Formats: sequence, structure tokens, C-alpha cells
Amino acid sequence: MPVNYTPPAPAQLLAVPGITLGTAAARIKSWSRDDLLLMSVASGAQAAGLFTKNRFCAAPVTVCREHLERGSAVRALLVNAGNANAGTGEEGLAHARKSCTAVATLLGCSSHEVLPFSTGVIMEPLPIDRVVAALPACRAALAESRWYAAVRSIMTTDTVPKGASRQVHVDGVAITVTGIAKGSGMIAPNMATMLAFIATDAPITGAVLRELAVELAEASFNRITIDGDTSTNDSFVVISSHRAPMPVINSRDDPRLAAVQGALAEVACELAQAIIRDGEGATKFIEIAVEGGRDAEECDRVARAIANSPLVKTAFFASDPNLGRIVCAIGNAGIADLDARRVSFYLDDVAVVADGSRADSYREEEGKRVMAKAEITVRVALGRGDARATVWTCDLSHGYVSINADYRS
Amino acid sequence: MPVNYTPPAPAQLLAVPGITLGTAAARIKSWSRDDLLLMSVASGAQAAGLFTKNRFCAAPVTVCREHLERGSAVRALLVNAGNANAGTGEEGLAHARKSCTAVATLLGCSSHEVLPFSTGVIMEPLPIDRVVAALPACRAALAESRWYAAVRSIMTTDTVPKGASRQVHVDGVAITVTGIAKGSGMIAPNMATMLAFIATDAPITGAVLRELAVELAEASFNRITIDGDTSTNDSFVVISSHRAPMPVINSRDDPRLAAVQGALAEVACELAQAIIRDGEGATKFIEIAVEGGRDAEECDRVARAIANSPLVKTAFFASDPNLGRIVCAIGNAGIADLDARRVSFYLDDVAVVADGSRADSYREEEGKRVMAKAEITVRVALGRGDARATVWTCDLSHGYVSINADYRS
Repeated sequence: MPVNYTPPAPAQLLAVPGITLGTAAARIKSWSRDDLLLMSVASGAQAAGLFTKNRFCAAPVTVCREHLERGSAVRALLVNAGNANAGTGEEGLAHARKSCTAVATLLGCSSHEVLPFSTGVIMEPLPIDRVVAALPACRAALAESRWYAAVRSIMTTDTVPKGASRQVHVDGVAITVTGIAKGSGMIAPNMATMLAFIATDAPITGAVLRELAVELAEASFNRITIDGDTSTNDSFVVISSHRAPMPVINSRDDPRLAAVQGALAEVACELAQAIIRDGEGATKFIEIAVEGGRDAEECDRVARAIANSPLVKTAFFASDPNLGRIVCAIGNAGIADLDARRVSFYLDDVAVVADGSRADSYREEEGKRVMAKAEITVRVALGRGDARATVWTCDLSHGYVSINADYRS
Repeated sequence: MPVNYTPPAPAQLLAVPGITLGTAAARIKSWSRDDLLLMSVASGAQAAGLFTKNRFCAAPVTVCREHLERGSAVRALLVNAGNANAGTGEEGLAHARKSCTAVATLLGCSSHEVLPFSTGVIMEPLPIDRVVAALPACRAALAESRWYAAVRSIMTTDTVPKGASRQVHVDGVAITVTGIAKGSGMIAPNMATMLAFIATDAPITGAVLRELAVELAEASFNRITIDGDTSTNDSFVVISSHRAPMPVINSRDDPRLAAVQGALAEVACELAQAIIRDGEGATKFIEIAVEGGRDAEECDRVARAIANSPLVKTAFFASDPNLGRIVCAIGNAGIADLDARRVSFYLDDVAVVADGSRADSYREEEGKRVMAKAEITVRVALGRGDARATVWTCDLSHGYVSINADYRS
């Protein structure tokens, strides 16, 4: 069960004018559930995407990059669960391209206006014939109201669907932002194992969208880590359907952008945190806030050293204030000239370490009290500058081992 | 139970002339077992040490470094289990120094000829009075035959004592090498969580010992990783008692060195592998051999990316040939210009990936056959050079989570 996360009710995922969604059961694995999502986007829409930095990136990631390099016009997204189409070589690329061509034929657009996405097991051939065969059923189901069915179809080890919507008014026009995401393991820095799609009807140019996508990811999906692994397939796409009745936003300086960007950021942050709250086996949600670094990069490095330490994560699982493990992780972050005598840290409001050793005021009962909570903030002060960075993570439980030891069966 | 490791019988750990060992129960934790080891070394002995790179290094590590900077003459080592004396600030340093002074008084040497070591829980004050009070009992027990009792006294989460001996003949003189080690978690690159002491009676100068120590560690203790964490206390010390009746070896070019170095290397390698075989919760011993890199550093990086991936480790635990996870880990190793289409890998003798995608010959039954074994070699060919590197690791099991969720209680 996710940590303090209630999945959206179907009606809470608001329709975004110009975007319709349809799902079908392509039987990519031995599932009977829907596992294929077609998102059809109105003519004139723009998109921007960010993708995994894994050198073994999946075939659909390569094809998405190619298509978005040709331009930001987009007419459709196709997403399958159950198979990652990664480590599949030239055949995998051919499959991803074939799926785009099939969608383009069905919808009457160019194949480079179609973006393909896959998630699931790596290194097994994508059953492309079953994908193509299920496309007409996806098209027949297309409707603006189907965001909930859409997010359900792309789940893998997720225990709940993840989605969020916001509405804001800009110059008297109602603007909608709706996003969905999947992912609960193999989550790490730099666009890690997840698919996330956020759409708005606010009319934004491709150039502005590209800048927004980077900023949105940096403050949301790039802040999360479950196990330090970065998948072959991670993708985050922002889509503007250009359907809201207002002049196009074509500059970062446009005063109308702030409200839209705020809504996009809220949705991105909610989705990113939902991924952690539903992390594989997670029983706790942990925010690691590092301050007082020389630059944000070193703060980030310390935060991730703590967040990815199996020893720290098992201590959180056990609600055990074995706080030396956090000290140890800070020391392992690779900051060669870190002066341990200037480092302090806090568990929520409890000072644990002051100037490199146990705080005089620290009492183990206080540490236990905080460690028993389902949401915990670890605040680290490095004492060497003004920069800061935050990372969200979860604990490492028996559930994580069980899920990952059994996933394929 | 360790993976294919039978601990030594007491008689298999051979006495090293000039070195006596004595243990006692200092009751550093609520144990009744011996938890304090005094190793007394004959006058004229030399030592070299390597220590953790963790920036929060423990107080005894700081003191060891100080003492070895003053010279390589050593008269005693003092090791306690149950408390790491790390994250303990100035008080911790004072405690470590006080323990050296007490040993020096007892044995009639200088305190800077005493090297202190601690292992156990971080960030709790060392009960120095109990340590000092137990020293006379340690001294009373000193004997050349007590290596087995010695290694038992320094165990923490180890399930078996780890030790090895070799004898070689050099110019007709019998030379003994005996080593002991402790450690089973928090093991990672760069002198990770362990204490290891290897002694020989071959007379070797401090300068030569220092070079040997680096080479020995590089091929043994720096090749192992259990969970990617590097502890605050890791130490590896090589001691030469200078008791063998032969002229001193004072040059790397001395032809007598090869046989001694070979014996030292065998003992170091056996101890390092024993730590993995007894890794916390380990059910498998995995060798990851990466070849075809541009330099050893990038091969090492790929090997550790695989070895430290929780997803790879849980797949090994499950005997599940979910080999895409290894592909994914290779892609995450941070080699920016890695061409996935040139990468191949093998599980033992089974070709899994050839030129970036699944090998035509690969059959899942073959993968399952290898994954079911207790010892597995993963061989990765990067296809971009002649360098190579090997790392040894274990799987990630429910046992790991249980041990680390319960360790302090």
C-alpha cells in the first residue's frame, strides 16, 4: 500500500481539450487487462520530451529522440506495458518504427509525429504483431475522459494508478493540466525508470515547452530515487494541445506563463512523489534535504549517497535510529575535502549530529520517535556554503526483495 | 551459512614467530564473549596500513594514520568489536589515544608504536574504561598460537571466523604468512568495511611493506563489494615481525620477495573472498569480470555498477535470469560514449548478449541453469579496448534486510 498516497478517482483526472485516450488489451504478456495506450493529440499540438541517460536506452527512446529532433509537432503517443523493447537491437528499432507507422496510417498523420513508449521486461522481443493488431481497438476507445483507464493500462509493478490534475485561470480562460505516471522501482537520478505524460490545453510553443520540461523534471522526477538504478526506458513528455482560446505563449517572459507553469510544476511534483510513495516495498517516505554546500551538485551528491545506501534504507525500514549509518553515507558521498567536524544533521526537528559528533541534546527516544513515522525529513547541514538540494526516497524492505525476486514470474 | 567457505580449524592458523595474541571480554556491548584483541609484536617489527576513504573516518583510523606517519615500527595492535568509535568527535580521539597509552604502559613501548582499531556501532561513545580494564587479561593470554581466538573476538555480523595461512620456503628458510579478517556488510570499494591483519615473519622493510600493502589490497579487498557502502573504520595492516633468520628484504627487486608476496597475495585473496562468501544474507558468490575496456578504471566502474545494482542482486537471489537488469546496469555505469552495439556478456559459459542484443544462441533454460548455481561468473566484453577488471560480490536476499533491520537490537 502506498505511503500516504490516495490514487485519484477517475473523475479527478480532468479532460484536456484536444487530447483523447484509448486503451486495449494487446496481450503483450499473459495479462488479460488493457496494456496498450493510444493518446491522440489534436493537430497543432506541440511536445517536448526528456529521456533516460542509460547507454542501453530502449528502441522507443531512440525513436522518440529522432522524432522530436525533427520538430515538436506531435499527433499521437503509443505506450505499451509488459515489454520494454530494450536490449533488442535492430529488430527492436524496426518494431518501434513499425508501431509508429501503424498509428500514423490509422490516424492519418506522419509517422514522425508519433512518439512510442514501452515499459516492462528488458531484452525480450516486443510482440509487434499483437501491438499493431490492438491499435484499432485503442482508436475505437478514444475519448477525452479516459485518463484513468489510460494510466491503469501502463502500470507494471505499480500498486495504484498515479495521476493529478489542476485548473487555473489565465486572462479569464480556464486552463487544464493533467498528468499521469507509472513507475515504482528502478527509479534514480536523471530521468529514471518511469513514464510520465503531462498535458495542457494552454498554447505553448515547442521551444518554450523544451525549456519548461527541463525545469519541471529537475524539480520533480530528477529529485527521486528508489534504488539508484536508472532504467533503459524512462521518458517524460509535456504536451500542449493549443486548444485553449488565447494567443500562443511563445516566450519565457510572457506573464501568462507563471500560472500555467505553476500548475505543471504541482502536477509533476505530485506524480514524482507518488512514485516514491508507491515505491517497491516502500513503507516510508523520506525527504533528504541537504544545505550548506558549496554548490547544488555536491548537496545533491550527499543527498543521493544517503538515499541510495542500503544500510540507511534498511534502518528506516526497521524504524531503528542507527544514525551512524547516515553519518557513514555522508562520508561516502565523494566530497574529498569535506570537513566532518562542520557537519550536522537533524531527523525532523531532532538534532542528531552537531559539528561532526553526536549532539549533546540527542536522546535515543527522540530518534526512535521520528524513525517510527511514515514520513521523515533528514536535514543535513554541510557547513561550507549556501547551496542546497533535496531528494525524495523510500526505505528498503522485505517487500522490495520479494517484488524484485519474483517480478518476471 | 557462507557460500562455499569452510572456516579454518584453529590449528590451520599457523603461528607467526614474533607475534602473540591475547583476547578478553571487555563487555563493550552486552556480550559475554571476548571482544577485545591485543596483538603484541616483537621489537624490530615493521607495519604498513591502508584505511577507509570515508570522510567520517573513525577516531582509531585517524590515530593509526598519525602513528604510521611517524614511522613503520610497531609493537602492538589493539582491536575492539561492538563499538566503532566513529562519529564521536574529540572525545573519541581522546579515547583512542588513551587506549594506545594504556597498551604502551602495559607492554613497555611508545604509544605511537600501538595501532588501535574498532568495529561495531557508529556514533556511540566507546566505553574506554572497560577497554583499559580488560587489557591485563589480554596480556595474560598472549600466545603465538591464539590466531583463532583472535579472529573470533573481532567478529560482528560475521557468521564464521575468517583466516588463512601459507608457508613458503625462501633460501631454505620456512616463512609463515597468517591473516585474519572480519566483515560481512558495508563492504565496498576503497578499503571497505572490514578489518584485516596479515602477518609474516619474513623480514621486510617498512618502505617495501607500504608498496606491497597497496598492491595486495588492490587485488583483494578493493575487489569486493556487498552493498556499495564504505565504512568509517576499514583498515588493512600488513606486519613483518622480522623474526625469520635471513637478511632483510629492502628492495622490490630482491628475488626472495616473489615467494613471500605470492603467499601474502593468496592469503589476502582468500580473506577478501571469504568476506563476500559470508556477506550479510549472501546465498551466492558472484564474480564479475569486465574486459575490453579502454582502461581498467572504466572496466571497474562497469563491474561495480552491476555488482551494486539492487535489481541485479535480487535477480541473483531469485535465480531468475532477468538478464535485462545486467544490461541496464552496464548502461548506467556512466561511460558516456559506450556503444551498446559492441557490448556482449556471458553467464559462465553461456552467451547472453552479443553486440548489444540477445544472443541468437541464448536459451532461457541455459540462463536458468547458471543462475541456479551458488557460484556464478558474469563476463562482460565492452568491445573498445584491452583493459580488464574483476569484482566479487554476492546477492541481495531477505537475509540482508533482516540482518540490517535488526542489527543493533
